[in-house]
Amino acid sequence: MENLGFYNGEYDLIENMKIPMNDRVSYFGDGVYDATYSRNHNIFALDEHINRFFNSAGLLQIKIPYTKDELKGLLKEMVQKVDCGEQFVYWQVTRGTATRNHAFPANDVKANIWIILRPVNIKDMSQKIKLITLEDTRFLHCNIKTLNLLPNVMAAQKTEEAGCQESVFHRGERVTECAHSNVSIIKDGILKTAPTDNLILPGIARAHLIKMCKKFNIPVSETAFTLKELMDADEVIVTSSGQFCMATCEIDGKIVGGKAPEIIKKLQDALLNEFLEETK
Amino acid sequence: MENLGFYNGEYDLIENMKIPMNDRVSYFGDGVYDATYSRNHNIFALDEHINRFFNSAGLLQIKIPYTKDELKGLLKEMVQKVDCGEQFVYWQVTRGTATRNHAFPANDVKANIWIILRPVNIKDMSQKIKLITLEDTRFLHCNIKTLNLLPNVMAAQKTEEAGCQESVFHRGERVTECAHSNVSIIKDGILKTAPTDNLILPGIARAHLIKMCKKFNIPVSETAFTLKELMDADEVIVTSSGQFCMATCEIDGKIVGGKAPEIIKKLQDALLNEFLEETK
Repeated sequence: MENLGFYNGEYDLIENMKIPMNDRVSYFGDGVYDATYSRNHNIFALDEHINRFFNSAGLLQIKIPYTKDELKGLLKEMVQKVDCGEQFVYWQVTRGTATRNHAFPANDVKANIWIILRPVNIKDMSQKIKLITLEDTRFLHCNIKTLNLLPNVMAAQKTEEAGCQESVFHRGERVTECAHSNVSIIKDGILKTAPTDNLILPGIARAHLIKMCKKFNIPVSETAFTLKELMDADEVIVTSSGQFCMATCEIDGKIVGGKAPEIIKKLQDALLNEFLEETK
Repeated sequence: MENLGFYNGEYDLIENMKIPMNDRVSYFGDGVYDATYSRNHNIFALDEHINRFFNSAGLLQIKIPYTKDELKGLLKEMVQKVDCGEQFVYWQVTRGTATRNHAFPANDVKANIWIILRPVNIKDMSQKIKLITLEDTRFLHCNIKTLNLLPNVMAAQKTEEAGCQESVFHRGERVTECAHSNVSIIKDGILKTAPTDNLILPGIARAHLIKMCKKFNIPVSETAFTLKELMDADEVIVTSSGQFCMATCEIDGKIVGGKAPEIIKKLQDALLNEFLEETK
């Protein structure tokens, strides 16, 4: 199938799928998600994404109606049904279906499981990206991968209208993360990236970047940095599950980075290789 | 019908209604809503709610596919289809149906209109309510009535578990509003209520309360107040479209208010009377 949707055991093309109006996603965005990529029917970094997914759900007291192994099994079975090329593998859980009422529904209301698979191309890392900066007006639960994504939607639209590829959020002077990615800088040979508190998502690509830096003996400092440090960095790196290590050439129309291309190249090659090896 | 759901022209019992998986509500909570009550097939304060709804949508650049008059006509037509008792009249607009992608969909993708009507009892105002306080961790767009309501869901659950009826949010010392209501205090005969900035919803019941205070020559100060002022108030008033003017007897287990019952009674009677007159 060219793409595949799943909702509580029902399958179809995503565009044919329907869900109950009373799914709590409809009124509250009451759910969490996670996503990764597959290639050759192999899902990349699945354990890490599943662990984060269960963690997100746990922080909101949403009971996922599968064990981790069951959900992994389901996802692995589903990627067999689509083309063997690169696929976006996305899943979410919502807090059940019930008459609209803010407080949790009755205990016997089971959470709903959604899955979508669709073809995608993993981003070519040879291109550099352009960013805009935006004040971070999101809630203080950015460590949870929720379906409350309006600020991210508005940021994505502004980014697109500015002819850029991502936006960097900042709370005052402090850079937090990008609208759909984490952001790190390299300065004087050191990788600096914000710590995983409630202001950023603990990105899995970010964790891989850190691991790879350590492997290459690039020191890593998990401390928050400022807008000024961002603009003065030797390199600005944007990481997400679909874009492992993108270098930045411009922020708010000003030239940035480009001063440590050999580090960028080394990290990109290693991270891409890791993906290709795992999804052979 | 005992209740009524509507989605882009389709009608059914709410529990039978289905929506496309790719409605942008499903992935982003990308929409806004408004709600009021009807009695005897008459919708209360409809113009004000419609105006706020269009304002919410405009702030997020969602194009409502109806004029204000058309939407009012549709809602008025719908309340004729349900019982003449008190009804919860709820509607929302979501930014269309499209393949998951954060930025806005193509210009020709029309927004989706949802309506739900169901029987309800307007809250008896003779009962006092109990509150808990919670740090306000919401985003900085609380003036927009969006479908990104996870912090409100979590607050509602905590409130219920505490055996209370509402939670009061505060940012540090500053009280903002309740999870589903505005909050005001009376001290020394003056009504104090937070100004309508981006930290609170411009409540319609709040506006009616202010108007009624002015009618009764009760001075109104639209300035933020602190947790300490809340606890020391002569009365703590919680207002929402279903609970016009609820007096509070307890916050975090401590006795509060109860020192200006004659003001409370006068406001409650006048606000209830306004509702009953408009929905005769």
